[in-house]
Amino acid sequence: MISQKMQEQVQNSSVIRAMFEEGKRLAGIHGAENVFDFSLGNPNVEPPEEVKKAILEIVNDENSMGIHGYMNNSGFEDVREVIAKSINQKFGTAFTQKNIIMTVGAAGGLNVIFKTLLNPMDEVITFAPFFGEYRSYVKNYGAELVVISPNTIDFQPNLTEFKEKITSKTKVVIINSPNNPTGVIYSEDTIIKLSEILREKQKEFGTDIYIVSDEPYRELAYDNAEVPYLSKYYANTIIGYSFSKSLSLPGERIGYLVISDQAADFENIISAANIANRILGFVNAPSLFQRVIAKCLDAKVNLEAYNRNRELFYNELLAYGYECIKPEGAFYMFVKSPIENDAEFCSLANKKNILIVPGSAFGCPGYVRIAYCVAYTTIEKALPGFKALIEELKK
Amino acid sequence: MISQKMQEQVQNSSVIRAMFEEGKRLAGIHGAENVFDFSLGNPNVEPPEEVKKAILEIVNDENSMGIHGYMNNSGFEDVREVIAKSINQKFGTAFTQKNIIMTVGAAGGLNVIFKTLLNPMDEVITFAPFFGEYRSYVKNYGAELVVISPNTIDFQPNLTEFKEKITSKTKVVIINSPNNPTGVIYSEDTIIKLSEILREKQKEFGTDIYIVSDEPYRELAYDNAEVPYLSKYYANTIIGYSFSKSLSLPGERIGYLVISDQAADFENIISAANIANRILGFVNAPSLFQRVIAKCLDAKVNLEAYNRNRELFYNELLAYGYECIKPEGAFYMFVKSPIENDAEFCSLANKKNILIVPGSAFGCPGYVRIAYCVAYTTIEKALPGFKALIEELKK
Repeated sequence: MISQKMQEQVQNSSVIRAMFEEGKRLAGIHGAENVFDFSLGNPNVEPPEEVKKAILEIVNDENSMGIHGYMNNSGFEDVREVIAKSINQKFGTAFTQKNIIMTVGAAGGLNVIFKTLLNPMDEVITFAPFFGEYRSYVKNYGAELVVISPNTIDFQPNLTEFKEKITSKTKVVIINSPNNPTGVIYSEDTIIKLSEILREKQKEFGTDIYIVSDEPYRELAYDNAEVPYLSKYYANTIIGYSFSKSLSLPGERIGYLVISDQAADFENIISAANIANRILGFVNAPSLFQRVIAKCLDAKVNLEAYNRNRELFYNELLAYGYECIKPEGAFYMFVKSPIENDAEFCSLANKKNILIVPGSAFGCPGYVRIAYCVAYTTIEKALPGFKALIEELKK
Repeated sequence: MISQKMQEQVQNSSVIRAMFEEGKRLAGIHGAENVFDFSLGNPNVEPPEEVKKAILEIVNDENSMGIHGYMNNSGFEDVREVIAKSINQKFGTAFTQKNIIMTVGAAGGLNVIFKTLLNPMDEVITFAPFFGEYRSYVKNYGAELVVISPNTIDFQPNLTEFKEKITSKTKVVIINSPNNPTGVIYSEDTIIKLSEILREKQKEFGTDIYIVSDEPYRELAYDNAEVPYLSKYYANTIIGYSFSKSLSLPGERIGYLVISDQAADFENIISAANIANRILGFVNAPSLFQRVIAKCLDAKVNLEAYNRNRELFYNELLAYGYECIKPEGAFYMFVKSPIENDAEFCSLANKKNILIVPGSAFGCPGYVRIAYCVAYTTIEKALPGFKALIEELKK
């Protein structure tokens, strides 16, 4: 008696649940410490000390009605102002509190902006490989996800195909850089070209096409790599940010949208997003954590811990004969499956107590995603299994 | 360029925004302390001391990854188990953690269950007067809200009309008791009769009809009034609870759904609601506050403060000649407008610096809602205005 749409969703999710159950089964047999779970993007690096300090300060010193009460559906004005200033300082932009809407994480933010912008049958473009949840977020509003096939050379977006697939119905282009699942950062050159194409197509069709930049991994960039700030390259830009990874607070559901003044129909978007936040049932981003993150905008998680994992894992896998582009950000590696069928490879990995996700889940079959946000020792202990796997397959 | 649906929403919201702007304008002229805002259901009673204590204990003593990390999309198992036990103790039910899904407040919970259950064109019944947001929540999933006209004698649901309006397309009936905006508690007699009608109609149409009981005001019941626990009367019951009012934490967005084992298609509803929580962008209820409320299930806000407001306001308005049923719960009074046009009466009240909401917003024209979750002195200072208003209108 559940809705038809949710029947499909339950069906689709059963694959992931089966994997989760398999992990539990393996842990039951071999002990949890001997099962190597690289399937989840759950940060294993602790939140910076500033977070705890901020919570204690706020709860001890501030008025409890102010901390826990309702505010404007877009969030506390002072928090939004501090965020705007911090962005301006980092990227030379000129935002104020009116450009910022506090959201229930980036997932909440994306839903708010999709509810705001999308009519049924509108088209939303994304570049494979992509975070599979985009499919659901777009479907929530009756729009259609158009997937640009992957460029497996360097995993920068395939701009030739992109240009061909933009139509008069294209309303949104989702960008996710540093990327889940590849860890690739879209280069400034990519962003400039992509923006140029969009401007041309807007002119050609007489439409507005918005970039929605999903940026939960912005702060996780290695070797001081630059992550271009989209609103500087393209006027119709909306940024979805999250503190889930940058401060290791995924459970707290705290993030924000940045809506550029330059975006077409700015005033209406701001009004509508405020209302969408309310009527989708978020109402507002959690109030205490709005105040907490305002005190932690310069705090950083221990990026070196992820970097150490990255170096070890990447170098070893390459030495064993795996093919993989070196991730520049986030905490994922996207490795070519030694056999064509990525799901089958994941099953074989399961037999070595290794849990990884087929690339098919990200619109890119023939690859697997390995999340390395785990303890260093977990990687060390799993490496012999990876080595054995490829050796057996090469026989 | 915003979506057509949101264009309507922005249009509709402009009335409320106009009211808000009028309040600010009045505060600018007369000083905020001389503007009497009874328009918002924002608790003015502080959270109980247990909340602060719980936050400090958790943040000081528990592992930060556990506090702020991801968990099952339905919430922490131990928190859900404690909630289930607490409900069982109070109401003699037999729930376990598997019946509980932690949600982003009741608004989040209602959206999760509507996403789970509703197909486009399904019908959802509610009884006027009703919380206006139900209209949006139902529309989010393409279903239709069917409103049963108010019974202005005692504001119990009009069961005769209810029986007539149930069709083969009726999927959900929303119950909200203690009620916003009337403060009325639906009696046990009402609940028994309503359940009986639903069972008959289910048999007649061969369908399942779910009661969704929206219960943010459950703990705000005066004179020890009983609020019947719906799942004891009707098998297909889903309860949406929130700590926004019971612990004065509206900004924190923390609540839960209770899905009865007895409900038809229970297993699928549980799976689908878990997924709906994720794909709507909530992902999970805020993690720290899941742990906080688990330690505060027996804590209570100072109900006597609201009760004192209720007694003063109700008795004085009656003495001036207003007609109103005495609220038994929540913190609203639903007063008959002395003139037919409730919007016009609200405008006249504005001229006395009094902000109240027309009953039309709740599907019940000819009445106004007064939220008395304000300082006692605000009521005292506003009373002369209410007196003058009715005297002028009676001339």
